[in-house]
Amino acid sequence: MRIKIVQEKLAKALSNVSRVAAGGRATLPILSNVLIRVDDGKVSLTTTNLDMAVMSLLPVTDSENGVVTVPARLIAEFVSNLPRGEMVDLTADGTKVEVKAGSCQSVINGALADDFPELPELEAEKTMTFRMKAEDFKAGLGQVMIAASNDMTRPALTGVYFNTFEGDLYVAATDGYRLAERKLAEKVGAEVVAIVPTVSLQEVMRSLGEMEDEIEILFDETQVKFRLDGVEITSKLVDGSFPDYRQLIPKESEINVGLSKSELVRVTKLAALFAKEVGGSVVCSTSVENGCFAIAAVANELGENSSEIKTAVDIDGKVTLNSRFLLDAINALSEDKVEIGFANKLDPVVLRGKDNREYVHIVMPLKS
Amino acid sequence: MRIKIVQEKLAKALSNVSRVAAGGRATLPILSNVLIRVDDGKVSLTTTNLDMAVMSLLPVTDSENGVVTVPARLIAEFVSNLPRGEMVDLTADGTKVEVKAGSCQSVINGALADDFPELPELEAEKTMTFRMKAEDFKAGLGQVMIAASNDMTRPALTGVYFNTFEGDLYVAATDGYRLAERKLAEKVGAEVVAIVPTVSLQEVMRSLGEMEDEIEILFDETQVKFRLDGVEITSKLVDGSFPDYRQLIPKESEINVGLSKSELVRVTKLAALFAKEVGGSVVCSTSVENGCFAIAAVANELGENSSEIKTAVDIDGKVTLNSRFLLDAINALSEDKVEIGFANKLDPVVLRGKDNREYVHIVMPLKS
Repeated sequence: MRIKIVQEKLAKALSNVSRVAAGGRATLPILSNVLIRVDDGKVSLTTTNLDMAVMSLLPVTDSENGVVTVPARLIAEFVSNLPRGEMVDLTADGTKVEVKAGSCQSVINGALADDFPELPELEAEKTMTFRMKAEDFKAGLGQVMIAASNDMTRPALTGVYFNTFEGDLYVAATDGYRLAERKLAEKVGAEVVAIVPTVSLQEVMRSLGEMEDEIEILFDETQVKFRLDGVEITSKLVDGSFPDYRQLIPKESEINVGLSKSELVRVTKLAALFAKEVGGSVVCSTSVENGCFAIAAVANELGENSSEIKTAVDIDGKVTLNSRFLLDAINALSEDKVEIGFANKLDPVVLRGKDNREYVHIVMPLKS
Repeated sequence: MRIKIVQEKLAKALSNVSRVAAGGRATLPILSNVLIRVDDGKVSLTTTNLDMAVMSLLPVTDSENGVVTVPARLIAEFVSNLPRGEMVDLTADGTKVEVKAGSCQSVINGALADDFPELPELEAEKTMTFRMKAEDFKAGLGQVMIAASNDMTRPALTGVYFNTFEGDLYVAATDGYRLAERKLAEKVGAEVVAIVPTVSLQEVMRSLGEMEDEIEILFDETQVKFRLDGVEITSKLVDGSFPDYRQLIPKESEINVGLSKSELVRVTKLAALFAKEVGGSVVCSTSVENGCFAIAAVANELGENSSEIKTAVDIDGKVTLNSRFLLDAINALSEDKVEIGFANKLDPVVLRGKDNREYVHIVMPLKS
């Protein structure tokens, strides 16, 4: 195996794949390695953690076929520190990989490729394909992933639920206390119901550079593959069923107020400082008499706080929320003007951007 | 006690002092608090951890005398989240402090000022005063502090040694493996020999904004005070004697090579990747025949690396160094062209910026 390639390209491709490789002393040492395969001028670099695999593809003009594995983080850091613009020469001699660039030379000890586990390919006949603008994908997933759970005892909630409904593609996530849903693409012409692990999506988000135009998402029954510019990320799906969440989103709320996002963030942060002492509990209320939305927190030890924002109010109301969930929800909205809707003390609180029907975030009230 | 002051000024002053206050549950709870004292239109905010105290001073036009303490981080975060440009009204009622700004109001529970420990004042008749440009101080200390030790069993090495020599002021630090010395100011007209704790200097560095012109440093026998624009930081000195370090700095080295800083950083990082496995050990050498300086690392498991930099060489030589100490030393040099001097295997290696006699960094070789 031999490759000759300019430093920047190799460094970028290695940096894309090295994050998924295990650092230091993995239980299965080969999982620390990147598989380098050269096949008729096409080079692929692959890493895997058994749940997920990342493959970078790059064309080279000068190469010899072959395959080898080397410690991924070592070679990624090494190549990133070679001078920009320099040609890098990679040659495998058995399991030893010689790297030369300018007046620098190295031998990196690798391992045979035989033991390297690769994820199975998607089943072609069962594969559904979706395409969308990379920026829409990035913005949409960013708004939803925050609501996913970290609780590994409920695996279905640790992922993002991709589902088609009335011809459109939606993503949703919930941890049982809050739920976020976003319409990702319209009239997609294919159907899917799949839970994608949040950790795999985080890797996709990190790999999405500024350059990508389009992202292609392929699902079969057990796996998903994300195709980006020169990078493919394959992940197992979460095996489980996602809650029937649509019925949980209130069609309309009794009380609706419009607020400035930045002001709402600010007063929520103020209340959150005191709410720390009382498990994050803050009280949101509306007052017709004062024409305002108010947020307050009372802590015995630290003190207390209340702030008001003037706005049009029809009905007096009050609801107790967790300040962190409220803040996450507000920050996830992309509009400057936001709407908060609530009804009686126990109904879910609904947050949306003004006039935005594509994204909704709901937060369950605390008992007060 | 009452103050009326614009949000930005109060927020900045609180942020300057709140870092030193203990967070969460301190063993002595009052150390989490900031002492707010109003005395005829002058407001001082003070925090202390018993080794060090920080005081912010700010003038107010509308105030009533008094003194109170409140949790420093809470009030700092609180005021920083109030709207910019708003007038903030702070009123103490016993130990409760009411804060009002626009449509936001809070009560923060404080404590009586009686128990608040303040560091003693410097003894006026024994005080030596130094003044210098803030940027010189910042640059100089930044180059020296990195060589100080973290080993609390050798307290004298955990500080920076301020000392006058032939009329000039020097700072030096060493951890026993490397040493950095910098001339801080010339013809200072006063004398000092004092070890200032590195943690206190870090606080001074953080408080030095972009705005300061000058810094004033006052020493008595047991304390040091740094006077910045609106902030005073007082610290105990380290009780101990600093090694007689000047004799350790070689007057001249047998082998001297000039190198580009960025290139030297790059090749040292490459070698360091492999040196991790062998305790950071890298071999620097010069070769008259090849006209180059070389750096190499050999690791059994990972592999090996060597890089060369072309440069004028008179004598063949070789020395083994710790790659992290070497990298710290090179990064501390502010010039693009650097000089590295060494002699036989056991003599200290000297690093300087080209033609710079104000700063020197020496690194002890490893036995090879």
